[in-house]
Amino acid sequence: MKEIKLFCPATIANLSCGFDVLGLCLATAGDEMIVRASTEKGVRITKIVGADLPLETEKNVAGVAALALLEAFETELGFEIEIYKNIKAGSGIGSSAASSAGAVFGINELLGRPFSRKELVQFAMQGEKLASGNAHADNVAPCLLGGFTLVRSSNPLDIIKIDSPSELYATVVHPQIELKTSDARSVLKQTVSLKSAITQWGNVGGLVAGLYTQDYELIGRSLHDEIIEPVRSMLIPGFDAIKQTAYENGALGSGISGSGPSIFALSKGETNAQKIAYAMSKIYKEMNLPYEIHVSKINPDGVTIIAP
Amino acid sequence: MKEIKLFCPATIANLSCGFDVLGLCLATAGDEMIVRASTEKGVRITKIVGADLPLETEKNVAGVAALALLEAFETELGFEIEIYKNIKAGSGIGSSAASSAGAVFGINELLGRPFSRKELVQFAMQGEKLASGNAHADNVAPCLLGGFTLVRSSNPLDIIKIDSPSELYATVVHPQIELKTSDARSVLKQTVSLKSAITQWGNVGGLVAGLYTQDYELIGRSLHDEIIEPVRSMLIPGFDAIKQTAYENGALGSGISGSGPSIFALSKGETNAQKIAYAMSKIYKEMNLPYEIHVSKINPDGVTIIAP
Repeated sequence: MKEIKLFCPATIANLSCGFDVLGLCLATAGDEMIVRASTEKGVRITKIVGADLPLETEKNVAGVAALALLEAFETELGFEIEIYKNIKAGSGIGSSAASSAGAVFGINELLGRPFSRKELVQFAMQGEKLASGNAHADNVAPCLLGGFTLVRSSNPLDIIKIDSPSELYATVVHPQIELKTSDARSVLKQTVSLKSAITQWGNVGGLVAGLYTQDYELIGRSLHDEIIEPVRSMLIPGFDAIKQTAYENGALGSGISGSGPSIFALSKGETNAQKIAYAMSKIYKEMNLPYEIHVSKINPDGVTIIAP
Repeated sequence: MKEIKLFCPATIANLSCGFDVLGLCLATAGDEMIVRASTEKGVRITKIVGADLPLETEKNVAGVAALALLEAFETELGFEIEIYKNIKAGSGIGSSAASSAGAVFGINELLGRPFSRKELVQFAMQGEKLASGNAHADNVAPCLLGGFTLVRSSNPLDIIKIDSPSELYATVVHPQIELKTSDARSVLKQTVSLKSAITQWGNVGGLVAGLYTQDYELIGRSLHDEIIEPVRSMLIPGFDAIKQTAYENGALGSGISGSGPSIFALSKGETNAQKIAYAMSKIYKEMNLPYEIHVSKINPDGVTIIAP
């Protein structure tokens, strides 16, 4: 039967001021996945390499996302999924989203593309619901669409893709600590001052404007989070030092990726991005804290077929 | 001595979700002003037609804005200003801003343009400070720059001009009631829920994206204000009916202009804008409430020289 092999990219959600609405897609960090059509109806996860995750379809985010798609599209075909995880669970760069998005993208391809990439988001969100209890599009949207994505509204779902300025790079460092999503959530205050909120939406406007006009300086000036970062960053060891060194080495901006513990920096050009990676590494080495680091151009495409 | 005659446009600030950050410039509503160079140093307001405003330089917003410019630019020249007011004070469409912006624009022209339009904003803001106690750029920025303006930050001042989609029109109705700015301010809550704030900055992102991509539907979906409008609109008679009829007649969105009492609607094309004006008029006629109404394309230019 026909099969395709996919690259399922990592993503950064909660992009500074764009908490809960802005995300971006990475190019050099991601999982691989094989999706294979079979004559046996339903969805089977036949192999998972690189992570200890359930093979049972209903307990696997890729399986649940795939089932959501197949509920909306009648077919006699069934599908097998092999997942090759590179993105660590709990890293804050969209591990579950990569699996959910990959599964629905792959099945959609094998079905002859009945759905657009944007339409696939709703199915992939069901995988996120299994992973976090909340059917959010923060990571699956940039994973499926590439570039930057704005989730203007979750209900009804309204997603805008924004192309990335061509020289924009991300550096993402993942300190290998466990940060429970429940802890990252519980520190958030449920009310904010009107003044901070206005600053935040001014910056969201500036960031979106900077992306459309390829104004790197404006992007940098806008990459500030008045509201979430001050409280959440306290859960991430070395956050202030990492952020400071990112700025000292040419970052346009820096902040928490997703709900952490990964920390990202955006910069213009690969040289800056590599310099920042070196400086971030140095800090975690000095702290004797294990870490992973990624340097990546913004991925304009999202999930892609890499074979055949 | 040399003199120029200016058109000083009306403006809409606090554009729905863009409270305190987004504004736009109107084309068909505005004041006129003559600015004349004189050999006598300083600034004199020599004539005001159409409004009962102080001629004394230090008590007049145009005078104060002009003095702020002259403090930054040494010159032996002096200036005379004649103001022909069409924008009613307290209407919510930037009456004081038109005078402040006009004065600094005119003097800058006669001085050979030592300052860019963007640089003039800081001087015009001093007029706003006299008018409202607060040196804000909400109206002077769109008045000087034209189109849409985003005040990303007030301190330091960071203003982004966004060109308007070519078919975008505004309808603005001014119910002739007195709404004190202090009342419009006092109803605001100083804290907001995180949930509402997120909705609001999602919409700001959507609105800015819609303007750059000329996506009228997206502009419409984004023109919502979760936070300010629900409380402030209660001070404006007929607000709900006006807004509803605007939508029924093809508006993309509708909200409070500035701090009220004017109400604006944006729409695609002049036909819709005129239809909305007719429908809005009908409501205030039925309520026996005197009103003024303006239908205007978004003004791409801001303050302009109309003579000689």
